[in-house]
Amino acid sequence: MNFCSQCGNTVRFAVPEGDDRPRYLCDACGTIHYQNPRIVAGTLPVSGTRVLLCKRAISPRKGYWTLPAGYMENAETTEQAATRETREEACAEVALANLYTLIDLPHINQVYMIFRAELTGGFNAGPESLEVALFEEHEIPWDELAFPTIEQTLRHFYADRVRHEYPLHISAINPEDRERYAGSA
Amino acid sequence: MNFCSQCGNTVRFAVPEGDDRPRYLCDACGTIHYQNPRIVAGTLPVSGTRVLLCKRAISPRKGYWTLPAGYMENAETTEQAATRETREEACAEVALANLYTLIDLPHINQVYMIFRAELTGGFNAGPESLEVALFEEHEIPWDELAFPTIEQTLRHFYADRVRHEYPLHISAINPEDRERYAGSA
Repeated sequence: MNFCSQCGNTVRFAVPEGDDRPRYLCDACGTIHYQNPRIVAGTLPVSGTRVLLCKRAISPRKGYWTLPAGYMENAETTEQAATRETREEACAEVALANLYTLIDLPHINQVYMIFRAELTGGFNAGPESLEVALFEEHEIPWDELAFPTIEQTLRHFYADRVRHEYPLHISAINPEDRERYAGSA
Repeated sequence: MNFCSQCGNTVRFAVPEGDDRPRYLCDACGTIHYQNPRIVAGTLPVSGTRVLLCKRAISPRKGYWTLPAGYMENAETTEQAATRETREEACAEVALANLYTLIDLPHINQVYMIFRAELTGGFNAGPESLEVALFEEHEIPWDELAFPTIEQTLRHFYADRVRHEYPLHISAINPEDRERYAGSA
């Protein structure tokens, strides 16, 4: 950030009075430009014993497999964001079951929220996907997953499926998790 | 938003090519300025049969009672944000139990995440609180709560306490919920 989006003057990066961390400040109009994490909402769509994955058609991690997920937009709910992303990336309708993984990525200021869901109809590759397909557990392309958040969610799912219990899992991605995912941030 | 924070030129509000909703666009440098919901993280601190509330010292809803909560910052996790806000507003340390309410406020682009927690020591009014106190259920100032999210969280808690089960509750605030909370947005 170089300029104030309110008045167009240059900003400086400093700790505001009474605050404890630096922000972008505009001395001309007094605006403090706060920056906060973004939510990535998505689903784990299940059809019988199979799980739906999308092969990414865009960067980052183009060509790798992911669950349908993307940035939550203003004016929608988390559940609406998750179902919208599923519709956009996999042309699929789902019935949400429960919030299943909540994964913090503090190094890139993201919070993943993946809902377990039941696939209720067909599917197709949306504009951001090269391919969309259903996978049995032994078919999951573990070495070709796009992001560590996707691997964590799938690992929880197959462990929980044995017990038929799917509680919310809260975790964070650490630097070691990221190493195997070059370019995934 | 009037100016591009990257290059300082004026922005326009229009649907980018390939997108489906309007964004602030800079024709000079090509930046698309996405805007996304913010997370408000906090806790429901419990001490024995009592719950901790803070009387707000700042707008909006100054003088009304709230749970300790505030905007999640970059570079932290949701759990760190919830405990930090509890420390800042109530000078209190807590042990988090579980994510308890997830409340969408699509009209103001916020997502509340309140963790149930155990108060592990003393408390005091932080700079954003006029007063911090513990309340038995019959002492809760229902007509003087700051936000509908706080009321929803407390109502869930007292209903769940009878059963000794505290599952995650996901909900959204609708216009009717807001009417009784003038100025709370």
